[in-house]
Formats: sequence, structure tokens, C-alpha cells
Amino acid sequence: MKMNDCGASAPADAIPFSAWMGSVQSRIEHALARLLPAPGIAPARLHAAMRYATLEGGKRVRPLLCFAAGELVGAAAERLEVAASAVEMIHAYSLVHDDVPCMDNDVLRRGKPTVHVEFDEATALLAGDALQSLAFQLLAEHRLADDPAAQLEMVKTLAAAAGSRGMAGGQQIDLESTGKLLALSELEYMHIRKTGALIRAAVMLGAACGAPLVADERARLDRYVNCIGLAFQVVDDVLDAEASTATLGKTAGKDSKQGKPTFVSAIGVADARRFTGELRDAAHAALAAFGARARRLAELADFIVLRKF
Amino acid sequence: MKMNDCGASAPADAIPFSAWMGSVQSRIEHALARLLPAPGIAPARLHAAMRYATLEGGKRVRPLLCFAAGELVGAAAERLEVAASAVEMIHAYSLVHDDVPCMDNDVLRRGKPTVHVEFDEATALLAGDALQSLAFQLLAEHRLADDPAAQLEMVKTLAAAAGSRGMAGGQQIDLESTGKLLALSELEYMHIRKTGALIRAAVMLGAACGAPLVADERARLDRYVNCIGLAFQVVDDVLDAEASTATLGKTAGKDSKQGKPTFVSAIGVADARRFTGELRDAAHAALAAFGARARRLAELADFIVLRKF
Repeated sequence: MKMNDCGASAPADAIPFSAWMGSVQSRIEHALARLLPAPGIAPARLHAAMRYATLEGGKRVRPLLCFAAGELVGAAAERLEVAASAVEMIHAYSLVHDDVPCMDNDVLRRGKPTVHVEFDEATALLAGDALQSLAFQLLAEHRLADDPAAQLEMVKTLAAAAGSRGMAGGQQIDLESTGKLLALSELEYMHIRKTGALIRAAVMLGAACGAPLVADERARLDRYVNCIGLAFQVVDDVLDAEASTATLGKTAGKDSKQGKPTFVSAIGVADARRFTGELRDAAHAALAAFGARARRLAELADFIVLRKF
Repeated sequence: MKMNDCGASAPADAIPFSAWMGSVQSRIEHALARLLPAPGIAPARLHAAMRYATLEGGKRVRPLLCFAAGELVGAAAERLEVAASAVEMIHAYSLVHDDVPCMDNDVLRRGKPTVHVEFDEATALLAGDALQSLAFQLLAEHRLADDPAAQLEMVKTLAAAAGSRGMAGGQQIDLESTGKLLALSELEYMHIRKTGALIRAAVMLGAACGAPLVADERARLDRYVNCIGLAFQVVDDVLDAEASTATLGKTAGKDSKQGKPTFVSAIGVADARRFTGELRDAAHAALAAFGARARRLAELADFIVLRKF
């Protein structure tokens, strides 16, 4: 990786990306464990399901993006922990609901039985519902911005990202598209909602925890999230087409088997891979004017595109 | 109804309760229709399901309580419309999810096919999810309190009421109690969460839209909501045991058939009826010191206890 691609030359004392990532992942794991209801508190089975769905899993891409955006604006880690946890709870709830029999009917997630398999379907439904509520409760009850009005804006950002014109809407379009061949533009439309909306929220919430960005900076950050949000999904499709179940920790080749349109089915593996490279370049370009403080965001664009899992 | 029971003597120019109720119900119907995504906007099927689940249905008890509490503090109707709509969307989402096959598996709600019957199960799941998101979006994007920090408190109140130690938690306890005989105290514990939490939020959000209450006033309002929240559920159990499906607009006698514990199964119809009368008296007593401005809250305590549907 050439950091001057994105104008972010690393300070001599900066820790390597992998160490930074590990430290944020560890931090977010502890934050989630603390912010989720304790396992012994009634209703214990529901709380156990919420913790099972959220803890010890995933790459934590959204929390990493939230922390990286926080670094851009000098945000306090204590704020970022809460904002990132809220985003991750929305993500975790969406996975729980996606996996139930009436949706994707999947039994394996992050290498473990899915929540409705480990618990039961009703508990999975309620655990997802309660995780969504908890995300908004966290954004409201902790001090995350100097200005309470800006914090209300954070609630709005996450709610809109999760809702019918964001993640849930993208999921609906995904369901309805099964068995259809979508054009590239239609696939993008779907994924900007299904995956991109929450990735955008992760970045914007992280940025909202620190010094306010000016309009031009917001526009640049916007371009960055558009690129990585889409890249994330295209890479997912490529990995799903290529990888084995053991590597992914979830059922591989599922989308194509279910007749769901993917970027690979639309343009093939080679072009999909090329597309991710272009998106990565565009993400770097959008960050260039920020300089070194956008280093982690630039590294995450690389991580998202180059990951093997 | 003797209004001096609760110290709220009606001003000579006040409209009768039934007319007030009708006007609030009409107002909330228009507000919901305006605040829900328009039916034509993509994803159209999801938005149609959200509207189907929310519009033209129910007594709107929670919005009525929100408006009545707003009257206590001189809140603007424009604010109350948004706050009441947010609460009603949480309520509507909970009904959609309650009705799906893995939960209560019900096909009739408010005299119409349930959402998963009219649409499909996956759309019902997503419509419920998106209604919850929209509720929090509304609380964040409209100006509902003079102080943004107080408005963040409203978000927290609704999120806690909806979450694992509120409505969703009560639902989980309800599921786990099927086939068990619960003591009266255990039934109360369940219903304070399952039904009471959102009723409390409706009142507290209405009160938050106007002039702030002092601690003593909040405590009195708290006693009031404790009484009516519980009364609401006891009356539901009595009606469910007594009424026919046609009158209720939903499957009658369902809870006892499913082996779910109810207040009627715990203490019998006569004692359950007597209990509702005591709760109503206690609700009136809690409001006494507020005087005439608590009139609608007092009338709603009567309405909740004396309703036949």
C-alpha cells in the first residue's frame, strides 16, 4: 500500500494498520459487552440472545470505520465506543432477522449456529427488535456531541440508515429481486441501501463525535463512503462466488444458489474485481485533501477491497 | 362520569370527551398518513405494508394519552402529532411482529388480515423493523422540545420503553409463560413491560412536548401511568375472556386457548373487574392536584376501564 496514493503519509509514530485494527476490535468488543444488558438480568433468555448475536463475531468493519472517521475529527474514544456500538447493534439485529426461515433461512453465521437455531425463532425476532431499540437508546443517553442538537442529528442519521429507505428497504428490494437478472445500476441502487446506508452511518456518526466538518469536508467524506459502501458489497459477492464455507464462516455460494442477483452474476468475477479496484482508487482520491488524519479511513478502503474473508 | 372524582372540573367551554377523542383520532390518522413514507415511493411494497399496519386501525389509545398529557403542559398540537405518531408506530410494529407465525400466529387484527397474511412474512418482518426505525427518526428530525437535550431524553424514553427491559422484554416473558400459571405479581411484572412501558412512554412524551414538569408533578404522572397501564391489560384480559371475535376485531379467547396466563385465569373475571375499578380510582387520585388541565387524562382512565372493545 502506498499511503501517498491518498495523501496520507503516516506519522513516524503511528502504529501499523493491523495493530490499530486489533486494538479497535478489542475496544469495541469490551464496549459492546458493557453496553449490552448483562446476561443475568431478566428476561435472561432474551438478553443472552442479544449478546450471542452481537459479541465475539465479525470483522467489526462498521466500528472500524466509525473510529477511523473519529480520528479525522479528533473525537474521544469514549464517544466513539458508544456510537460504534450503536451502529454495530443495528448491523447485528439485521443479521439476526436476515437469517430467520422466512428471510434467508440460514443456519450458520460467523461460524456459529444462527440465533434462531441456537435459541428459537420468536426469541430471535425479539432479540433483533430489542437490539434496534438499544442502539437508539445508546445514542440518546450518552453524551456524544458537544451540541445536543448535533446528537439528535446522529439519531436521525442512524434511523434513516436503518429504515425503509435505507437498510430495511434494501433488504426488501433484495427479497423481491430473487430470480431476476438486475442491471448493474439496479444492483447498485439495492446495495447503496442494503449495505451502503449503514456503512455511511458508521462514518458519519464517527465524524459527528468530534469537531464539526465544514460542508466541503462532508462532501468529500460522502464520496468516500459511496465508494467503500459499494466496494464492500461487490467484494462480498466475489468472495461468496469464490470462497468455501469454512473460510467465510457462513454458507458460501448461497446468493447464486438462491437465484439472487449479484455483481458477479451481472458482470462476472474479473470485471467485479476490476470494479473494486476502481472504487478503492476513488475512495483514496476523495480523502486526499484531508492529509494524514484520514490515514485509517484510507487503510480501511484497502482492507475492504483486499480482504480474503 | 363525575369529573370531580379526580379534581378536574370541566371548563364550561370544553368539548365533551367523545368529541375530543374523535378529533384527536382524526388528527393522528392524518399525521400518520403524512409521516409514513408515501405509498408510491420505492420500495413500494414495503411502504404499503408499513401503511397497512399503521393506518385505519385501533382506538389510538397511546396517541390519545400523548395528547391528553400534552394538554397538561400546554404543548403545541404539531409537536404532539409527531410524538404520538412515533409511539403509535412502535405499537404498530409490535403488533405486526406479534402476529407472525413464530409468535402468536394470528391471521386477524383490527378486523383485517394481519400483515404477513395480506403481504408475506418477510415483508411483515421488514415493515415492523422499518416502522421502529421511523419512530426514532421522527423523534430526532422534528422539533419537539425547546431544549434539544430534553428531546434526546424523549428518544431515550421511547427506546427504553420499546426495548428488552420494556415492551420486547415483556413479550419475551409472555412467550416463556405459555402453559404456566403465574402469580398476580408475576403477571403484573410481565404487563408493566409488555403493555405498560409504551403507555408510559406515550404519556411522558406528550408531557415532554410542553412546559417542563417539576419532580413532584412527574411523580404524580408516574403513579397515573402505572395505574392505567396495568388497568389496560386487565381490561384486555377480561374482554378477551368475555367478548366475541366480531366485537373485538381480533381472535377472541386466544390467550386462554393458547394456555397463556391472564389476569382472568389468575383471579377470575369478577376480581379482575374489581381490580380495574381500583386502578381507575387510584389513577384519578394521582391526577387530583393537577386540576382541570388533567381532565383528558382522567377521562382516558375511565375510557380505558369502561371500554367494551
